[in-house]
Amino acid sequence: MTSTPTPNQPHRKRPTQRDLDPHLHRYAQRTAGMTASEIRALFAVASRPEVVSLAGGMPYLPALPLDSLADELAQMVATEGMTALQYGSAQGTAELRERICEVMAMEGIRAHADDVTVTVGSQMALDMVTRIFCDPGDVVLAEAPSYVGALTTFASYQAQVVQVPMDDDGLIPDELDAALCSLRAQGRTAKFLYTIPNFHNPAGVTMAVPRRAEVLRLCAEYQVLIVEDNPYGLLGFDGQTYPAMRAADPDNVVYLGSFSKTFAPGLRVGWALAPHAVREKLVLAAESATLCPPTFTQFVVARYLAAHDWKGQIKTYQEAYRIRRDAMLEALAHHLPPGCRWTRPAGGFYVWLTVPEGLDTKAMLPRAVTQRVAYVPGTAFYAESDRSAAARLMRLSFCYPTPERITEGVRRLATVLDNELELQRTFGSLRPRTVFGPQSPSPDTA
Amino acid sequence: MTSTPTPNQPHRKRPTQRDLDPHLHRYAQRTAGMTASEIRALFAVASRPEVVSLAGGMPYLPALPLDSLADELAQMVATEGMTALQYGSAQGTAELRERICEVMAMEGIRAHADDVTVTVGSQMALDMVTRIFCDPGDVVLAEAPSYVGALTTFASYQAQVVQVPMDDDGLIPDELDAALCSLRAQGRTAKFLYTIPNFHNPAGVTMAVPRRAEVLRLCAEYQVLIVEDNPYGLLGFDGQTYPAMRAADPDNVVYLGSFSKTFAPGLRVGWALAPHAVREKLVLAAESATLCPPTFTQFVVARYLAAHDWKGQIKTYQEAYRIRRDAMLEALAHHLPPGCRWTRPAGGFYVWLTVPEGLDTKAMLPRAVTQRVAYVPGTAFYAESDRSAAARLMRLSFCYPTPERITEGVRRLATVLDNELELQRTFGSLRPRTVFGPQSPSPDTA
Repeated sequence: MTSTPTPNQPHRKRPTQRDLDPHLHRYAQRTAGMTASEIRALFAVASRPEVVSLAGGMPYLPALPLDSLADELAQMVATEGMTALQYGSAQGTAELRERICEVMAMEGIRAHADDVTVTVGSQMALDMVTRIFCDPGDVVLAEAPSYVGALTTFASYQAQVVQVPMDDDGLIPDELDAALCSLRAQGRTAKFLYTIPNFHNPAGVTMAVPRRAEVLRLCAEYQVLIVEDNPYGLLGFDGQTYPAMRAADPDNVVYLGSFSKTFAPGLRVGWALAPHAVREKLVLAAESATLCPPTFTQFVVARYLAAHDWKGQIKTYQEAYRIRRDAMLEALAHHLPPGCRWTRPAGGFYVWLTVPEGLDTKAMLPRAVTQRVAYVPGTAFYAESDRSAAARLMRLSFCYPTPERITEGVRRLATVLDNELELQRTFGSLRPRTVFGPQSPSPDTA
Repeated sequence: MTSTPTPNQPHRKRPTQRDLDPHLHRYAQRTAGMTASEIRALFAVASRPEVVSLAGGMPYLPALPLDSLADELAQMVATEGMTALQYGSAQGTAELRERICEVMAMEGIRAHADDVTVTVGSQMALDMVTRIFCDPGDVVLAEAPSYVGALTTFASYQAQVVQVPMDDDGLIPDELDAALCSLRAQGRTAKFLYTIPNFHNPAGVTMAVPRRAEVLRLCAEYQVLIVEDNPYGLLGFDGQTYPAMRAADPDNVVYLGSFSKTFAPGLRVGWALAPHAVREKLVLAAESATLCPPTFTQFVVARYLAAHDWKGQIKTYQEAYRIRRDAMLEALAHHLPPGCRWTRPAGGFYVWLTVPEGLDTKAMLPRAVTQRVAYVPGTAFYAESDRSAAARLMRLSFCYPTPERITEGVRRLATVLDNELELQRTFGSLRPRTVFGPQSPSPDTA
């Protein structure tokens, strides 16, 4: 006889996974690669006002002219609302695609609006590119470290990511050559190289111009497509830009761009510029994903580009971020304990910090949040197999807080590091010694 | 010795597929299922002013109060712009998710905002649901016919679609039982049943209420999830609504909703309401697809729902579409030749027309466009294997044109049909006799 549970004495049994999720047996295999990313957990942390978040990549929007934006938007709705609120084409509006070509011209790209596909942020462009190129098990090359959102997307398509080391001049061509050669020796090839040449997320470095030619040459030689992700390219702190890789090789580069950092991310307007045949596939993939990108936000961006001094706004952003970068570098030099090193970004949002031997940035994060400072541990930026390399690394963002808050945040971080080092001196490190850079994919270069 | 081409006498060779697309060898296998949909081709046709388009599913937006929308938007940008233009959560804003629960309550759904995921139109919700559930080769059940955008999405995930016949009361439970039984006999199961219970696209029919219980019972019995797509549910022409299937079985139904038809499609705001564990997977999938849905359009919709008489606006839409439906039904009865039959929708956007034996709506379309009328051939609404069933079918939309234009469009369509029948009488039909309804997936019911 089984006992009947009563409201006061419920029959308790340990819940099984199946109890927690009765749909567990139904999921596609790709969901195994879908795990809660560090980005998402940190959105929550970053929103607590007492925490100085050096974690998120949120742009500094107070630089935007909200009042004139409001006026223009009202005018747009009143005069063009019927079109702006209606379905549009899967590829995006012709007017916005024309204007996107003007933006890309600033980095030397000559392109036709026909080859541009508007997407819901460049994240969707990345998703679409992976969708049309990657079968499960296919190899994607990426920098080590690489953008966490890209790694998540590649994982959701069950692609295998092989990460290639960088230094202060970006991706190292010899390492790329070795990775390509090693794949070839295994009878495999990569579907594409995913690279962020300018003001890298998270590394903060920029690929040296001569290296771009080398990387283009290597990829052409090994017949590997390049996916050039360039959200930060116009945010050089001295107004400098670098020639887009797409400009040098239109047939072998898919270029991803975004208005998230040069205008506003809440609109989610990005794009892909692709060789013509690839663009056809991209549009079909995008149509099955969202039918069409939001017409409304495309009209907002197009009107902004037409009516505003958008190049002036970019200068305003550059200046805001330069001041923040300076505050961060000064605070790092002033407060951090010996044994730390960090990159010195010439643009973009991020500094990449290496902490002293024996520390573990992921294990340390809860203690840092207790000290009211947040960052992203290095592990987030490596594919699963390469995460052991990342224990001493972290990404610090200087894009969102005020310079004063950045200084205070770094001061708090220094206190956390000092405490960790003190613990280490007292009790010794429990963590095994780690190697900088990812594990090599090839047995012969391991 | 080979001849050298000169600028005046270029060496011509027939281009190979590889010449046309040097990336051809790189695409993922799923791109084989990505073909230009009839939707996309018809967006182009529909935009020519001399054509009466009975093809597109564009809502009748002149019913919207643009001036007050413009004012509210300006106020929203001026006061909440910093948040509305910033990144948001992958799940969508809490305020909008709360309001979505109020909308769903109109059809008997009691839901918590935690279980709602905002998406870029319900198309993205469909894409995400397919992403988390379908491995290549998995079976999805759908009505015959079914929404073309859903079939495209299922194809892009290499799912196999098995279509189940409908009649004037919607999906036929006995046919569903037969399909489920046949799959079981093959040792297979379906990942989910995709259904549009209300004012079906393209069939224009509504699933009878007693049938909903039967379909829910069958799916529970065979352990098949239901994906209930309900973009038109609030557009009953007499203000009538039907109980959502989700209301009766919260644990086995993923419900998809949209503001595209009750407000405006250019905002691309839709949602999925899912059992809690499924919702977690959906949010992870959505994060890798777009990082987050546009914050800006979510603020627009939330403010619209807060500040406008949105229920009154839905009544305005119902009335506009009722008048159009009446114009279409009257014109069909008045002009169409004998041998045609059509559904009589009680809501939504579409009439499903069967033309006389021997005619082929797809072959006829170019001649119809020449006569300045467009529709969607039935083939669009069947998975590849089932398309032979659709030759006599077409979808007619009454959502967008004025009643006068609808009448004129049907008159032109009648002329086209008369001409086709005349040709047929003169030369005989070249088309083999077709069977109404899809090919059965099972040998024993074929």
